[in-house]
Amino acid sequence: MQNVLVIGAGKSSTVLIRYMLEQAEAHDWKVRIADQDLSLCERRVGGHPRGEAVAFDADDDVRRRELIEDADLVISMLPASLHPPVASACVQRGKHFVSASYVSGEVRDLQQAAERAGVTVLNEMGVDPGIDHMSAMEQLEGLRRDGATITSFETFTGGLVAPDYEGDNPWRYKFTWNPRNVVLAGQGGVKFRHNRRFKYIPYHKLFARYEPLHIEGYGEFEGYPNRDSLKYRQHYDLWDVDTIYRGTLRRPGFCSAWDALIQLGLTDDTYELEDVADMTYRDFVNAYLWYDKDMSVELKLRAYLKLDLNSAIFDRIAWLGLLEREPIGLTRATPAQVLQKRLEEKWALDEGDKDMIAMLHKVTFTQDGKHYRRQTNMVTLGEDQEHTAMAKTVGLTTGIGAKLVLDGTISRRGIVIPTVEDVYAPVLKELRDHDIRFEEQPLEELEPQGEGA
Amino acid sequence: MQNVLVIGAGKSSTVLIRYMLEQAEAHDWKVRIADQDLSLCERRVGGHPRGEAVAFDADDDVRRRELIEDADLVISMLPASLHPPVASACVQRGKHFVSASYVSGEVRDLQQAAERAGVTVLNEMGVDPGIDHMSAMEQLEGLRRDGATITSFETFTGGLVAPDYEGDNPWRYKFTWNPRNVVLAGQGGVKFRHNRRFKYIPYHKLFARYEPLHIEGYGEFEGYPNRDSLKYRQHYDLWDVDTIYRGTLRRPGFCSAWDALIQLGLTDDTYELEDVADMTYRDFVNAYLWYDKDMSVELKLRAYLKLDLNSAIFDRIAWLGLLEREPIGLTRATPAQVLQKRLEEKWALDEGDKDMIAMLHKVTFTQDGKHYRRQTNMVTLGEDQEHTAMAKTVGLTTGIGAKLVLDGTISRRGIVIPTVEDVYAPVLKELRDHDIRFEEQPLEELEPQGEGA
Repeated sequence: MQNVLVIGAGKSSTVLIRYMLEQAEAHDWKVRIADQDLSLCERRVGGHPRGEAVAFDADDDVRRRELIEDADLVISMLPASLHPPVASACVQRGKHFVSASYVSGEVRDLQQAAERAGVTVLNEMGVDPGIDHMSAMEQLEGLRRDGATITSFETFTGGLVAPDYEGDNPWRYKFTWNPRNVVLAGQGGVKFRHNRRFKYIPYHKLFARYEPLHIEGYGEFEGYPNRDSLKYRQHYDLWDVDTIYRGTLRRPGFCSAWDALIQLGLTDDTYELEDVADMTYRDFVNAYLWYDKDMSVELKLRAYLKLDLNSAIFDRIAWLGLLEREPIGLTRATPAQVLQKRLEEKWALDEGDKDMIAMLHKVTFTQDGKHYRRQTNMVTLGEDQEHTAMAKTVGLTTGIGAKLVLDGTISRRGIVIPTVEDVYAPVLKELRDHDIRFEEQPLEELEPQGEGA
Repeated sequence: MQNVLVIGAGKSSTVLIRYMLEQAEAHDWKVRIADQDLSLCERRVGGHPRGEAVAFDADDDVRRRELIEDADLVISMLPASLHPPVASACVQRGKHFVSASYVSGEVRDLQQAAERAGVTVLNEMGVDPGIDHMSAMEQLEGLRRDGATITSFETFTGGLVAPDYEGDNPWRYKFTWNPRNVVLAGQGGVKFRHNRRFKYIPYHKLFARYEPLHIEGYGEFEGYPNRDSLKYRQHYDLWDVDTIYRGTLRRPGFCSAWDALIQLGLTDDTYELEDVADMTYRDFVNAYLWYDKDMSVELKLRAYLKLDLNSAIFDRIAWLGLLEREPIGLTRATPAQVLQKRLEEKWALDEGDKDMIAMLHKVTFTQDGKHYRRQTNMVTLGEDQEHTAMAKTVGLTTGIGAKLVLDGTISRRGIVIPTVEDVYAPVLKELRDHDIRFEEQPLEELEPQGEGA
């Protein structure tokens, strides 16, 4: 029998734990679920004979070592910053480690020790990072094998509310991922490469430079660029590619309305407001507009942002209740924290809402002297509020990764991310059995490329 | 005889040193000038019988102690970050200290020791900070003595090229202060108070929200807000004032053209460009514009910034040579460093150019039931490239401050800034003898105030 320890039973672990328990009998596993909330662990185990719930405080070093000592493989579903001590203890005790998070510097430093100990530290086994890497590499390496030369690669991912659950929300967005990350997205500006030129966009122009996108069967989207696309040249062996661009998906209209909030200054997280305790949301917006004793906040807002009378941007701001005389109810806050509070009130998933993960890749390549563009898409919908698309894409990827390490299919040791074929090929194959698959849109033949500016 | 030590003989020390030598005979001073460049010291002393040039490296702790030991008062004209060890050594040895810089945390920490030692550590004795504090306090306290209640206070300072020396430069600006500070001005955004409301402006809107201003005899100006106006409520005893706003003066058209550079992203100092060694200035601008093979950089720039065909903003950008196919000539640089290099090439003072310091205060107040606005201005022109307006306003203020400490007129001990009457009254009186004076523009009576938004 092999022992699996899952640390963290929060809402992103639901599908992972279900998968591990479903597979436990066939693979002769015992699956221990550890979380500071014991009753949550028990609920996740649901009385399964192969499961066990244990209480565990992430700060308790002694208990962590004990739990790891008893395991053959540890899956950490803790917040990313809490992985390093777990990964380090695993390497010391010769236990495999799997997580859905980016490889941090501290985890990268375990490379030598993990190799020596014969341990696999498998990271970035979620959706983004995770399925993005695996699907990109499978498609790019497939094209290269067929003699194609890749000329550009663009990739977009978004966590959104499923199409039937948008309601009357004009943003067509609800929080399915970390709200703070959504509010602060893009700060610091972005860099990417377009037609052999480095391109930079400052934060205050980012959401004005989105790309319109289409996914067959799911309609229109917008993609805004992520912070640093350039490092993916290394991950995906795309050093010579003309264009590399990584972005986030939203529904049409989101980006220009979000841009208006940035133009106002409402997403700033670098200072605290002077008098937030006495402020309404209307005062908050007014603090970013000039003083004029004869103009309403609505008029000043339209004039400042140069919005038309029938502006969809204005309507989205008003829908958020940012012009209402309603106390904010915080005593200290940065502008970004005030905005986040309002958004959490307005963009919360309702009972019964389902979420959606969408991912698309656009590749251009030359083959036999011709130039083509290929787009592939993956869309996954949530089953319910517990088994969300997010929990499903992350949990299945992590779980399959763990299974393949345990059964020896993945035999690579040291620090591993799933950009290598011996990892991505078997994982993607099983994900397809769970209906997580990329559909190809019709191949387009392109005009020969000009030189351009 | 009293010994005065001046540390730093750079270009901002010219007028200070001339003043100290002129006054030396009458006050029986010996004036030592210390700088790492001995020949510069000798040139400043110019063979004056009361002067002495000494070589001094700011890193040499032993030599610093020796020099301070021999002095009764030390004037530090070093960069602000180098003041603390000098001030600290002065306090330890019971010597007075004068500088033109803001009080740093390290200098503030000397308060107790300076009081115990009976030493005056007199700071902010320049123009900004310095003359701004003194003139503001003299005017505000004068109004209060006459029974007025201050309702708003706005203050603006600018270092500019003198009116006859602007040439064909459409920015009407040349560097007379630290170029890096000019390029990075306003980053982090600003806060101020307007009609009893806190107001915030993010960096990317700052230069779009300037205030038009007029100085009799010198024409039109623009003022953009400085980072934190609120702390002046404390300095100037203006806790209850409705509006407090501190800004920087430029000539008309500067702010909206500078805003265009910010919109592009060219003032960012937070990351290095990927390939600056191979770039021309045109490539640099193009890195911030989208890719389009059929559009010139000029066309893309106009379209991106929504500039008209006859745009004065476009003309100012073109005049800087930012669209020229000329190599930048740097191997590593942030965008702000590239921009600074170009500006230093284009905004350099020419041989024979003179500079100008302009300062203005706008105060509104109620008196006998009526509401008034008063504006006062000070304009000082440079004599030549050595005795600039900058060196004059800073040097005379510092020098007069030093004299008044030495002759006992200023008897206040501890950490002092010139917001107190026993400092500002005698300093401003003597500055007026040197033609550094505020002129009052005609008093305006205002409509009674509304409530407003």
